[in-house]
Amino acid sequence: MDVGVLYSGGKDSTLAALLSEQFGDVTLLCCTFGLTDDYEHAKRAGQAVGFPVQRVDLDPAVAREATETIVEDGFPRNGIQAVHEHALERTAELEFDGIADGTRRDDRVPTVPRSLAQSIEDRHGVSHLAPLAGIGREAIDAMVESTLEIETGLSPEVPKGDYETELRALIAEEYGPERVADLFPEHTQSRVTGRQ
Amino acid sequence: MDVGVLYSGGKDSTLAALLSEQFGDVTLLCCTFGLTDDYEHAKRAGQAVGFPVQRVDLDPAVAREATETIVEDGFPRNGIQAVHEHALERTAELEFDGIADGTRRDDRVPTVPRSLAQSIEDRHGVSHLAPLAGIGREAIDAMVESTLEIETGLSPEVPKGDYETELRALIAEEYGPERVADLFPEHTQSRVTGRQ
Repeated sequence: MDVGVLYSGGKDSTLAALLSEQFGDVTLLCCTFGLTDDYEHAKRAGQAVGFPVQRVDLDPAVAREATETIVEDGFPRNGIQAVHEHALERTAELEFDGIADGTRRDDRVPTVPRSLAQSIEDRHGVSHLAPLAGIGREAIDAMVESTLEIETGLSPEVPKGDYETELRALIAEEYGPERVADLFPEHTQSRVTGRQ
Repeated sequence: MDVGVLYSGGKDSTLAALLSEQFGDVTLLCCTFGLTDDYEHAKRAGQAVGFPVQRVDLDPAVAREATETIVEDGFPRNGIQAVHEHALERTAELEFDGIADGTRRDDRVPTVPRSLAQSIEDRHGVSHLAPLAGIGREAIDAMVESTLEIETGLSPEVPKGDYETELRALIAEEYGPERVADLFPEHTQSRVTGRQ
């Protein structure tokens, strides 16, 4: 089967891609609202681990709605979840037999509950794969250590091609950069630079 | 990391083993209550796919309690769940860094909710891996088709080394074979005979 993997250039989506290889031929899907060029970071990471990469255009209206939600909520969870669901719907319409993502068992956001996965499968005739959905943290860390080369740093310093980067940019533009710092607590990010 | 995989000789636990290879060195754990020799079927299947196999002895008192539950309930779900949880606890005490099982996203039983997985991890200092926990049925079928040789048939004709086989034997002994047919609806089983 042909599997498209929602890809940010981070370690989770890269592990999801490596595990998805056991199910078929993998293409990395670098989603972008077209608001920044940050998907290029994901594209470079994907090329560094040796997979074909495809750009997928998301609807900028969804980004705008998500940033409004984030600003209203005062935290990014619901906005990021909405964007992930949009990306799943959008990629499920493409020519792949399966759509994979890097959601982990212990992630708070985004999540893909079984009901959502089955709904996507039923409506689009694809299979959903979340190869990390049943994996504990230590096992994920062990797989990262034995398979990937990564670069880590605080989120603004390690640009990735994930939704957060574009949402941050949009919030900075509309509400000012200090608002971004309020809404997105600084956390350590990782970007994949190659396979071991 | 060293990963022990709860292994029945069926396709789900075999796929779990193949996926677990990405996290470390895999040993297949063939659990038995010592009531029948059926774990030998699992052992043969495991050897056929080329993994080291280790016998793990479960507590026969748990099997007896599970069969009582199954007979009282009139269906096997709760009894099988109790046995799976016992097997996870028992194997988590062994020398492995991770314990994996073949529970699938769409399985009704056994299941390993996140709370149970985290409890096992915290109490035993191991990682839990359920590599199929986020995988849709079509993707699992695709992986079986491209990686395994399997034999399928109705459950009594395709002996496996899973809990059900020993629980059936115990119920047949205590309550008569016709009771087994009442409690366990006939369903198609698969046993792995090798890798493609």
